[in-house]
Amino acid sequence: MITDRTVSVRREEWRAGVGRESDDLLAREEPLELRIAGASIAVVMRTPGDDLELARGFMLTERIVEAPAQIVAVRHCDRIEDPDAEDNVVNVVLAPEVTLDLARLRRNTFASSSCGVCGKATIAAATGCAPPLDDAMRITMTEICALPERLRAGQPTFDATGGLHGAALCRPDGTVLAIREDVGRHNAIDKLVGWAAQALPWPWSNLVLVVSGRTSFEVVQKALAARIAVIVAVSAPTSLAVELARASGVTLVGFVRGDRACVYAGAQRIAAP
Amino acid sequence: MITDRTVSVRREEWRAGVGRESDDLLAREEPLELRIAGASIAVVMRTPGDDLELARGFMLTERIVEAPAQIVAVRHCDRIEDPDAEDNVVNVVLAPEVTLDLARLRRNTFASSSCGVCGKATIAAATGCAPPLDDAMRITMTEICALPERLRAGQPTFDATGGLHGAALCRPDGTVLAIREDVGRHNAIDKLVGWAAQALPWPWSNLVLVVSGRTSFEVVQKALAARIAVIVAVSAPTSLAVELARASGVTLVGFVRGDRACVYAGAQRIAAP
Repeated sequence: MITDRTVSVRREEWRAGVGRESDDLLAREEPLELRIAGASIAVVMRTPGDDLELARGFMLTERIVEAPAQIVAVRHCDRIEDPDAEDNVVNVVLAPEVTLDLARLRRNTFASSSCGVCGKATIAAATGCAPPLDDAMRITMTEICALPERLRAGQPTFDATGGLHGAALCRPDGTVLAIREDVGRHNAIDKLVGWAAQALPWPWSNLVLVVSGRTSFEVVQKALAARIAVIVAVSAPTSLAVELARASGVTLVGFVRGDRACVYAGAQRIAAP
Repeated sequence: MITDRTVSVRREEWRAGVGRESDDLLAREEPLELRIAGASIAVVMRTPGDDLELARGFMLTERIVEAPAQIVAVRHCDRIEDPDAEDNVVNVVLAPEVTLDLARLRRNTFASSSCGVCGKATIAAATGCAPPLDDAMRITMTEICALPERLRAGQPTFDATGGLHGAALCRPDGTVLAIREDVGRHNAIDKLVGWAAQALPWPWSNLVLVVSGRTSFEVVQKALAARIAVIVAVSAPTSLAVELARASGVTLVGFVRGDRACVYAGAQRIAAP
């Protein structure tokens, strides 16, 4: 059985030295090629579904565009060489004023030898041209601690497979606006941001991004590019994630488990309960 | 305090509505630029330490070289623009017979529009030119089930931070040869492969790769490129990981927990206890 998001396979299930055949549902993984005006810019390994949202979100979080309005059209390509691949190529049309730095995109990172390859230079590149985030939003620790449970409740493909990352976009009062799942943690965020690009007024500095795993530099960089001011994560941040959050004014909360949580950056947005 | 692999930060630790300042150790994340004969080919976000091994492993697992002997020299660059970045640039010298496909490298994936962007084409590209793996190796389910615990026992940076992936290279009798940790799951594998490139006779089809998390397509692709025939993972595989393992003859075991495990591909290498 194949759905968009899962594939059923036979496996040998061993328990206490005895193996028997059984069925298992796996998270589906397929390549997705992203094109801008027909030119290939990236291939990501993703769980199919929400592909147009993924493409839209990628444009924002990789800072190819500065605002959702610069994305004119996003659709699957219907005239490509291999008909099997039809669902796996998405073309994006951008507003004429957007200038593309293809060399930077293809390096897949903000670090480059021209700006120096070190944490400091990487952070300078990621924060460089971004306007400061809105500082008015407040969220209580009680609401923060309730968010991972709400994300977890909206991950049907994880429930079936145990093999996907989840991300949620929430209001500070705890309302869940959308949840997305993907085999790649960055894709789950891009799908969410792409959804917001069409569903919510921009910018989103009054919203909270909840992620199921750890927080790397790239997770903070993607939130920052999407102008999301608060990140709540179930697990640990990396050193560079904390440095970027502090340098850019993002609130970063990690190890949110039960009534415990650790605030690594942007504590001014945590309100008294 | 900063060591190679961790950074100490102050944080606000909340518990049952009360916050207090405390120290925390985070996994260190920094960019590493890989160059071949002076030309930049990739920047990876990695935990510093074992950088030369990472570079060496990357050359093999990304199929830039076909065997360790084609890597002539690997060293940190000491003449780069920014002195802060000195530790973060590694240059590799390859044997003269190696031809570089820089365009493929910069796409960061095997999928490309020329071969069709779909799972089938991705697998064809990954298995295409690889000779079949040695099929003689056997491992018992008892040994397989013991491996995650041995990996876990050799992850000091995970113990300190809770924020890294681990990977181990083992013999079928359960002997652990090496363990590496990194904020990126692929980097941990590359560090391990780069270690093996200097420490062990090539190829390594009699060895087992143990990974702390899930198994994506890229994990199987890296093992296959390093000619490692057995992958043991604590968590779930993706659909494309299983497809690639089956197409290429890799043994793939997932959800290894206690005395339970699931065999998704290559069951012929599992011996009776």
